[in-house]
Amino acid sequence: MNTLKNLQELIEDAVHELQYPVYPPELYEPITYILSVGGKRMRPALVLMACDMFGGNVKAAIPPALAIEVFHNFTLVHDDIMDNAPLRRGKVTVHEKWNPNVAILSGDVMLVEAYKLMMQVDTSVLRQVLEIFSNTAVGVCEGQQIDMNFEQQADVEIDAYINMIRLKTAVLLGGALKIGALIGGASLTNADLLCTFGEQLGIAFQLQDDILDVYGDPDKFGKQVGGDIISNKKTYLLIKALELAGINEKKILNNWINSANFEPTDKVNAVKAIYNSLNIRQYAEQAMQEFADKAFVALDQINLPEDRKQYLRNFADGLMVREK
Amino acid sequence: MNTLKNLQELIEDAVHELQYPVYPPELYEPITYILSVGGKRMRPALVLMACDMFGGNVKAAIPPALAIEVFHNFTLVHDDIMDNAPLRRGKVTVHEKWNPNVAILSGDVMLVEAYKLMMQVDTSVLRQVLEIFSNTAVGVCEGQQIDMNFEQQADVEIDAYINMIRLKTAVLLGGALKIGALIGGASLTNADLLCTFGEQLGIAFQLQDDILDVYGDPDKFGKQVGGDIISNKKTYLLIKALELAGINEKKILNNWINSANFEPTDKVNAVKAIYNSLNIRQYAEQAMQEFADKAFVALDQINLPEDRKQYLRNFADGLMVREK
Repeated sequence: MNTLKNLQELIEDAVHELQYPVYPPELYEPITYILSVGGKRMRPALVLMACDMFGGNVKAAIPPALAIEVFHNFTLVHDDIMDNAPLRRGKVTVHEKWNPNVAILSGDVMLVEAYKLMMQVDTSVLRQVLEIFSNTAVGVCEGQQIDMNFEQQADVEIDAYINMIRLKTAVLLGGALKIGALIGGASLTNADLLCTFGEQLGIAFQLQDDILDVYGDPDKFGKQVGGDIISNKKTYLLIKALELAGINEKKILNNWINSANFEPTDKVNAVKAIYNSLNIRQYAEQAMQEFADKAFVALDQINLPEDRKQYLRNFADGLMVREK
Repeated sequence: MNTLKNLQELIEDAVHELQYPVYPPELYEPITYILSVGGKRMRPALVLMACDMFGGNVKAAIPPALAIEVFHNFTLVHDDIMDNAPLRRGKVTVHEKWNPNVAILSGDVMLVEAYKLMMQVDTSVLRQVLEIFSNTAVGVCEGQQIDMNFEQQADVEIDAYINMIRLKTAVLLGGALKIGALIGGASLTNADLLCTFGEQLGIAFQLQDDILDVYGDPDKFGKQVGGDIISNKKTYLLIKALELAGINEKKILNNWINSANFEPTDKVNAVKAIYNSLNIRQYAEQAMQEFADKAFVALDQINLPEDRKQYLRNFADGLMVREK
């Protein structure tokens, strides 16, 4: 079996070999640009890993792995327009570097190009793989819409939040693993279990992100601590705090949420103090652990020798212990 | 064989039976809305017609025909954002009725839903059909980008213009026919000939549209006469006029193009007078006829009894004689 690093390098090389037409440049240059901006290539690596785990030919899984990466980058290009984001991975976003129309249209082409890459799978799994991919894509779009709705919504329930992050983030991890497994020759049962593993782990991973925003070590986390608090992002922590808050705490929280002029550090400290008083970190860590546990239960049920599963355990551990 | 009207009704019924989830409503209501706004359902009817022509099962061609219709409507939703269009077929556009983000995202889902419908073809033609569909989709996006580029470009050559309308409008007609033919059991040679027929006819049809904008009977045409002239749209007529114009005529044309305050009727009459003096209508009609001829040459070469081809001849005649 390959190491994760090895698989990430395979993806990196394959991304660099992707060739698009030169005309019209406004359509194709943004694709090369956003793909070159990088990222950890985790999602395509999951396709290769799942294929490898079941003894499949990793080389044959490269085009569908690229499909997942191109699809993921398509969602970034369109999401950045919708979120009016100036930067992505420290670089200027496509709609800022060119303009929103170019970002819409080159994003559209990326979705088609993702299908073209995905179609390069063996005919024996073509229909199945494309169905999973399409359903995953629809899920990701639903997640993005629900996320945008939440921004305008005063009350969001924990279950609705979990469903949103499942759709927006986790289904693509599950879909990538399921597609890789089927290409690798896994049974549908094993592929479905691996899909569940990816989805539940994805939810746990997003919850960890919510926790790290507030409680992470700024040196290790690489993001502004409290960024979610400053922007009133409805994370698991805020939703849970609003749920558990007494009248007074709720008033303080809402004051900070509605305040337009504030010193960021003051807001972060005040909201964090309420989180602490309500034990929000513990609730969040418990929820995270529950989803991680569900992921590992699914992994346990997969009918493969333990040493092959170790692969994904290592990957999951790598994801989940960035801090601690 | 069925009549065109019969096929259009089949499509209309199938469009009404399309069901999308209810949640999140911002994602799915726009799909039902734009599909209900109508249009003549010509593109999906072409899929059924081509299938029928080769003796295929028209019922089996309904999902891919719907795929073409959903895809076409996806392009309308995204194009309308880019063109900042307030109305489509007399109704408020999706980005105006909801907002641009909703239009981007529900458009994205429509593209995925189009693939899901297209995938319902028989496995024997699945890969082939999806390849044609993907290449067609990329072509349409290229055409839209080139069209947007032309708006900012002073000099556009006739050949570049023909290539743009081929991509933006004609390849989808060719693709619809080719997909329908393959589903109907046509050989690749016959399917390719039918594709050429559709593409060349599509170019002729777009040139006719350019001519009708200026020379059409307003009662029959259903659009504002001279709308292209008023908005400086780079049509075959304007490009040809700028190519053939002497120094004086070029000056007058450019004055009107650069004028911000004018009486629309004055501009239309002045530009039309130059078109007339340069015989632009004749040039345009000759070009249109050349593309229509190429279309019929391809149709002639298709290896089918003449009575089966009559079907498409009638369709083409119906398209090309709206005026005269």
